Amino acid sequence: MTRLGLLTSGGDCPGLNAVIRGAVLSGVVSYGYDFVGFRDGWKGVLEGDVVPLPRHAVRGIARFGGTILGTSRTNPLTSGGAEAVRESLRRLAVDGLVAIGGEGTLAAAQELAKRGINVVGVPKTIDNDLDATDVTFGFDTAVQTATEAIDRLRTTGESHHRCMIAEVMGRNAGWIALHAGMASGAHAILIPELTVSLRQVAAWVESAHSRGRAPLVVVSEAFVLEGQDSPFSPRGLDTFGRPRLGGISVLLEHQLQELTGIETRATILGHIQRGGAPTAFDRVLATRLGFAAVDSAANGRWGTMVSLRGTTIVNVGFDAALGRLKTVPEDRYQEAAILFG
Amino acid sequence: MTRLGLLTSGGDCPGLNAVIRGAVLSGVVSYGYDFVGFRDGWKGVLEGDVVPLPRHAVRGIARFGGTILGTSRTNPLTSGGAEAVRESLRRLAVDGLVAIGGEGTLAAAQELAKRGINVVGVPKTIDNDLDATDVTFGFDTAVQTATEAIDRLRTTGESHHRCMIAEVMGRNAGWIALHAGMASGAHAILIPELTVSLRQVAAWVESAHSRGRAPLVVVSEAFVLEGQDSPFSPRGLDTFGRPRLGGISVLLEHQLQELTGIETRATILGHIQRGGAPTAFDRVLATRLGFAAVDSAANGRWGTMVSLRGTTIVNVGFDAALGRLKTVPEDRYQEAAILFG
Amino acid sequence: MTRLGLLTSGGDCPGLNAVIRGAVLSGVVSYGYDFVGFRDGWKGVLEGDVVPLPRHAVRGIARFGGTILGTSRTNPLTSGGAEAVRESLRRLAVDGLVAIGGEGTLAAAQELAKRGINVVGVPKTIDNDLDATDVTFGFDTAVQTATEAIDRLRTTGESHHRCMIAEVMGRNAGWIALHAGMASGAHAILIPELTVSLRQVAAWVESAHSRGRAPLVVVSEAFVLEGQDSPFSPRGLDTFGRPRLGGISVLLEHQLQELTGIETRATILGHIQRGGAPTAFDRVLATRLGFAAVDSAANGRWGTMVSLRGTTIVNVGFDAALGRLKTVPEDRYQEAAILFG
Amino acid sequence: MTRLGLLTSGGDCPGLNAVIRGAVLSGVVSYGYDFVGFRDGWKGVLEGDVVPLPRHAVRGIARFGGTILGTSRTNPLTSGGAEAVRESLRRLAVDGLVAIGGEGTLAAAQELAKRGINVVGVPKTIDNDLDATDVTFGFDTAVQTATEAIDRLRTTGESHHRCMIAEVMGRNAGWIALHAGMASGAHAILIPELTVSLRQVAAWVESAHSRGRAPLVVVSEAFVLEGQDSPFSPRGLDTFGRPRLGGISVLLEHQLQELTGIETRATILGHIQRGGAPTAFDRVLATRLGFAAVDSAANGRWGTMVSLRGTTIVNVGFDAALGRLKTVPEDRYQEAAILFG
Repeated sequence: MTRLGLLTSGGDCPGLNAVIRGAVLSGVVSYGYDFVGFRDGWKGVLEGDVVPLPRHAVRGIARFGGTILGTSRTNPLTSGGAEAVRESLRRLAVDGLVAIGGEGTLAAAQELAKRGINVVGVPKTIDNDLDATDVTFGFDTAVQTATEAIDRLRTTGESHHRCMIAEVMGRNAGWIALHAGMASGAHAILIPELTVSLRQVAAWVESAHSRGRAPLVVVSEAFVLEGQDSPFSPRGLDTFGRPRLGGISVLLEHQLQELTGIETRATILGHIQRGGAPTAFDRVLATRLGFAAVDSAANGRWGTMVSLRGTTIVNVGFDAALGRLKTVPEDRYQEAAILFG
Repeated sequence: MTRLGLLTSGGDCPGLNAVIRGAVLSGVVSYGYDFVGFRDGWKGVLEGDVVPLPRHAVRGIARFGGTILGTSRTNPLTSGGAEAVRESLRRLAVDGLVAIGGEGTLAAAQELAKRGINVVGVPKTIDNDLDATDVTFGFDTAVQTATEAIDRLRTTGESHHRCMIAEVMGRNAGWIALHAGMASGAHAILIPELTVSLRQVAAWVESAHSRGRAPLVVVSEAFVLEGQDSPFSPRGLDTFGRPRLGGISVLLEHQLQELTGIETRATILGHIQRGGAPTAFDRVLATRLGFAAVDSAANGRWGTMVSLRGTTIVNVGFDAALGRLKTVPEDRYQEAAILFG
Repeated sequence: MTRLGLLTSGGDCPGLNAVIRGAVLSGVVSYGYDFVGFRDGWKGVLEGDVVPLPRHAVRGIARFGGTILGTSRTNPLTSGGAEAVRESLRRLAVDGLVAIGGEGTLAAAQELAKRGINVVGVPKTIDNDLDATDVTFGFDTAVQTATEAIDRLRTTGESHHRCMIAEVMGRNAGWIALHAGMASGAHAILIPELTVSLRQVAAWVESAHSRGRAPLVVVSEAFVLEGQDSPFSPRGLDTFGRPRLGGISVLLEHQLQELTGIETRATILGHIQRGGAPTAFDRVLATRLGFAAVDSAANGRWGTMVSLRGTTIVNVGFDAALGRLKTVPEDRYQEAAILFG
Repeated sequence: MTRLGLLTSGGDCPGLNAVIRGAVLSGVVSYGYDFVGFRDGWKGVLEGDVVPLPRHAVRGIARFGGTILGTSRTNPLTSGGAEAVRESLRRLAVDGLVAIGGEGTLAAAQELAKRGINVVGVPKTIDNDLDATDVTFGFDTAVQTATEAIDRLRTTGESHHRCMIAEVMGRNAGWIALHAGMASGAHAILIPELTVSLRQVAAWVESAHSRGRAPLVVVSEAFVLEGQDSPFSPRGLDTFGRPRLGGISVLLEHQLQELTGIETRATILGHIQRGGAPTAFDRVLATRLGFAAVDSAANGRWGTMVSLRGTTIVNVGFDAALGRLKTVPEDRYQEAAILFG
């Protein structure tokens, strides 16, 4: 009997449990496979820390956030190497791995595949910055959660005639800011891909204010003001590696209020964006990716990852996802900028 | 100055207001256009019933369901004809129409375009059954709303060890059932595209029950049991054109309970699926379609409609959407059937 | 060591799990008690069907709907009698019972207490029709869920200029209709406590329509039109004991549309009102009731139930809850009727 | 004809629009009154900045957050004095005021009433720290919003085996922390009423961690660690009067992680707690308070405020609300502490 091992790695992401459900059900029902789950990502692989995953272990989990397997940021290549992975799989009689994770995990999976280990990847990031897939699961939930929160901020802004700033996640790409900003009708959307001057942001804020609106600014955590340091530059970080001043939105709050004279309030949405129940969109996408990952294993398509193209799930090489980040293209930003006008 | 007229036609759909916002902002900010809105769809065109749509009329509307313009099922071809439309637009100095609607509206728009009237279409249906676009706005909200409701039904099913049936919309295609069923972990999904015998449905229900689950059935309103009449067949309808017996789920409730002996309860989700605040996904998609419709007008692409392909908004001919319904393909249904197993 | 037994009985209700969590944590942490749970209400008591309830069995359950213990409508008095209950508790070494249920369960608990069995009651009903407590847990969630659904119906009503009817639960009392109707701005609220003529309902609908509103009617399932049969009268029920015609709202839909000429659509919200995640209000109330039930046991207040008075949890005799239903008083209905005006 | 003036003052609060709706409908329908709204609280009174409030101005507003009248923190006594208020009301022919606001507004209203100005108060604060009413509207929405956000944080904590800290509002009282903490199953709830040592907090966190849980801490913004400064002490504030270091949760994040060695993440929920759509509970309560405020005016009960007692709306003197804050009593905190154990 074929035994597959599942692992979830990297930051939490809504939909992980739906991938696990999809993979196990598909494997059990369609192929008669047996499953184990590795605890806490690659750490579980290296330590042989494993839980059985019979069918009933995945019942009802798709609608919950988080991952029943736990996750960590352990990198198998630096923490043990391919041989340790191979040896662990051999000892546990695991024929192949389904690795659900972000860029780091997919890069590791690629390396392991090159060394002959059977592995299929499932791309995961709320940031949507992985190339080779139209969208990653978790992104829709992050955008929906951020949008609902910003809808709340907006009424308070309007009641007080204040400028409200919402800081959303997005370390390398501004997709969450772009979509949540478009959905909530932001008057300025600020993303890491594009440096903007404080003066320009103030101009957008004042333009909205002059039309009688409560200005709304949606900013990615990694946005950099023209002529200023990144909030994630080494000297901006505290000893825990987190922005010392609380983030770009707090900086903007002070600078915008000073420059425009408009009362301004920042809110950092933070971790609520990566936890909790996935949207139906993410549950469907994640379930389909789980199905497809097991199909890939069954068809011997090791060394590939599953991805969404239009409405179809396809297999692509890891190279396709790892060459470069999928950042917000100029034309998508210009399109959204109509809202600022 | 160019003046465009907007109209929303057919059944209510979350995202209509976001299309209107997108179109007006894009037109005003990017092109300096002037807008009017026709009340209640084509009826407003034929009657010259019109409201001005300055920029401030669309402020903040994208996050609300419904349509600020109202809607109706009036067909311009049967109710007045192309000449009446042309005359109305001339009298109101409207240079072109953006018609937001479903199959009927797009077919009418195509006919009007053939007769030289400037019209751009925006496809709309919660049912997602229009071809030529990867997905229609409104569908994501319908699926999300249905899924949240089914999540609620599920806990009650489990507490009582009952079979719960949720009836969702979908007159011609089972997309809502397919996606809401996958998202909520249904043990049977029943769609109009595929006749299934009562015995097969009962087998799925009993299989879930025997594994200790509370069986969950998600059924499209237009599903037809093998050997039985459609709920929408003429003799099944009352004088208002609605299913006399309350719908397929009520029929199933009785028949399944009788056949399996498992206590069964049906809920018809009904109109909550087509109203209310759109999801962030639908707001973004609808906003982009509104932008693109005005771009199409500005570029003289009359006689086309805007549509989503992957992550890109493109123009397609009306023919592409009108040839045939986009129903659930066999392979998508088989994929989901893994959950029934 | 003291051992308590928990059971949940009657219809599903959001907050049951929070009561269970509260009771177990309070018992384990404050008193060093041991707990078992009876499966499926009194059925589990009579059959000795029991699960251990250590602390970790209740972790994280408060935020989920349903009951981890299962429920049924078994009545211990008619199905086995006090002696069978006593014998079962003796055999399982259970020192006392915490019975979470509605009127039937509380009446049974009262009878058992009279016969010397240690039992504490926790009142439960989404209908809020139990006297002796300001409010029952589950009611707030039912009202919130109904209100969110009606908010969705309302936008569709407005887009189409239709009258929308929402049928909510409430077999004996109109509390859900009253609160959901007030929250959603209904133009008519129809409750079982008060017969109203079709003509009066039509007058309210027409009044709203004439002011340019889309009329919204919120109706309890057990409302009776003047001069007509109750939807729950014997000859209105099918062989499963459910309203043959789909419910009062379907009847109203036809009659109102015929009388007023206004297009009318009914939606029966159904079981979504009694399942799913409880609101924070219900989680807090239910947790506190669970705490208090165990305090009652610890203090030997057997034969009482816990209840909310203002912001305080108190003990009351079963008599206080069982004398009569808490129906909507005339002045609360008249207060709400301001909205119909 | 009697003319009443409405104003909303102080921080934004879900339910303000429902009070306005309730007051205007009750006044128009039951008493034939005429209404005006003052813009931005007392500022509008002093400046005579007024909008008409006919019935149709309040249609559909109860389900939206914020206030259609705007708000400000202007104090009428220090900014103009009673004479200026009296003169403004006279000039605008306003016979009486309904002032919706927090402690400051109610204190001002009391003073104005003493000087013979007709004013009725409606207590408002999301913090629930006003005495003389069982609960204030806005509180339920704040708790619900915080709880939903914390539910999301919790799944991420569990996936990563992290300690999650959620900082909620509550400048003077810990009600939001108490209720959101109980609802979400916090392992430590920290409120301004009770200084706790870092060592004790760490002990609670380690206890949960040792039981295999992801520790969850819910902390009021104004909680003070034993032996440390308040986050709102003068030297902790920046030039905008906001905590320099981002708030108590950021401090705790660092200190707890250092002391326990458990990875810890803080999220400041911030303004999302005071904006957005009110819960059904708050809509009903706020509507009833609006009704009752106008009844009070009609019955000449000037110089009082409306408040909730059990399930009844009553009139109380301003003194009752202003004597002292309603803080979390010791026994309610001890009750919740069962969850920490």
